[in-house]
Amino acid sequence: MNASSSSVMEPTVGVLGGMGPLAGATLALRIVELTRAARDQEHIAVVLVNDPHVPDRSAARTEGGQSPLPAMLRGVETLVSAGVDCVVVPCNTAHLWFDQLQAACPKPILHIVDSVIHDLRRQGVSGGEIGVLGTPATLRLGLYQDRLAASGYQALIPGQDEIQSLLVPAIAAVKANRIEDAYPLVVQAIESLERRGARAIVLGCTELPLAVPHDRRPGLGIVLTDSIDALALQAIEWVGRRIEACSA
Amino acid sequence: MNASSSSVMEPTVGVLGGMGPLAGATLALRIVELTRAARDQEHIAVVLVNDPHVPDRSAARTEGGQSPLPAMLRGVETLVSAGVDCVVVPCNTAHLWFDQLQAACPKPILHIVDSVIHDLRRQGVSGGEIGVLGTPATLRLGLYQDRLAASGYQALIPGQDEIQSLLVPAIAAVKANRIEDAYPLVVQAIESLERRGARAIVLGCTELPLAVPHDRRPGLGIVLTDSIDALALQAIEWVGRRIEACSA
Repeated sequence: MNASSSSVMEPTVGVLGGMGPLAGATLALRIVELTRAARDQEHIAVVLVNDPHVPDRSAARTEGGQSPLPAMLRGVETLVSAGVDCVVVPCNTAHLWFDQLQAACPKPILHIVDSVIHDLRRQGVSGGEIGVLGTPATLRLGLYQDRLAASGYQALIPGQDEIQSLLVPAIAAVKANRIEDAYPLVVQAIESLERRGARAIVLGCTELPLAVPHDRRPGLGIVLTDSIDALALQAIEWVGRRIEACSA
Repeated sequence: MNASSSSVMEPTVGVLGGMGPLAGATLALRIVELTRAARDQEHIAVVLVNDPHVPDRSAARTEGGQSPLPAMLRGVETLVSAGVDCVVVPCNTAHLWFDQLQAACPKPILHIVDSVIHDLRRQGVSGGEIGVLGTPATLRLGLYQDRLAASGYQALIPGQDEIQSLLVPAIAAVKANRIEDAYPLVVQAIESLERRGARAIVLGCTELPLAVPHDRRPGLGIVLTDSIDALALQAIEWVGRRIEACSA
């Protein structure tokens, strides 16, 4: 995005990753792949803290497990010390702590649900029933429901049985690098929401887009919003606006 | 690798990336994909500084361009401040400054050529003629030649015309996200070295493995050493040894 050969790393996107690690690294990769650039120096500077030792976000909220907040705050501090200008968190469930993270971070954190809503509009879906797949905590605590409602959408959520029998094992399989095991489970969850009337499906846990490879998506015949790609595009747009503002 | 749910990020691998950015992000991704882990907390902590604004390494050495060293030293400093325990640099040409980087870094930097030699042995190639593909600077300044000779191999290097007509445009295409354009050029360079007697080919510029997708490699019928994967495996082994040493 910056055509100068300056070695000043600005603007720089900070990625608080590791939740899971494949999602964190994939987000850094997608920022590169989705950027229009002809040579190295036109790409976007990124600092990724991919700390997989952050305690499980869903367990903390649904089973009284250890809080991930202290580890996430340390990650934010590392990113800010490294000089980043904005922060993205490629973990939907982590956004249940968004307000505490933003309060501790002097740089803007781009909210993943806002990125997803922006991506729905980019794909031409301006209203109606939207299926949301995610972790038990994300779905139970309504991370998506209110924000979708405020933007003119209505969230459709899988039943408790489907969350446990399809989404929980699919997410665990991705975290263990067993992508092939995850795929049919996620497809079943997508088809079930489609039968209930969903116009589009949000892959609202960053493990879920990893379970459904890009080349298999057109065959599913429904609009999918990939929360990793949506966040990468939001970061790229943020950097573009920042460069424009600074050179105006 | 660390089964505890501790949020202490140790041991942590630092990745000095951005050279190019796709290679840096892919290395972070391959560390995740090549790690045997059943859940997030068993993966390896990584901090990636993916700064694409580092001046071109090959141009600095062959055309008197701006030195990349100050920018690389800043990146190393950022990684060390973030608490990493070792550093990898997913750019072969950057290793022409290896001694200066290591002198400024209190943590070990794993040398990419050592990783590649280790990978050749892992693949059962213990001696003989090895074709090396890379940037003009890497090949002209002999980054691989001496180290391969010291380990019982003999380096075969493409001719000057092939470097300019095949490798330079292939590397530029990857940096511009045009993978499909790069593939036939790299295959032609591989086949040429094979005809000259190479028993294996080193993809000795981190853009080159990106030009030859994993699923198309078996069809080429020759042992390939991928300098990104070799470095990722070296980092994973380093972390494994470190954990063993600390728990002994």
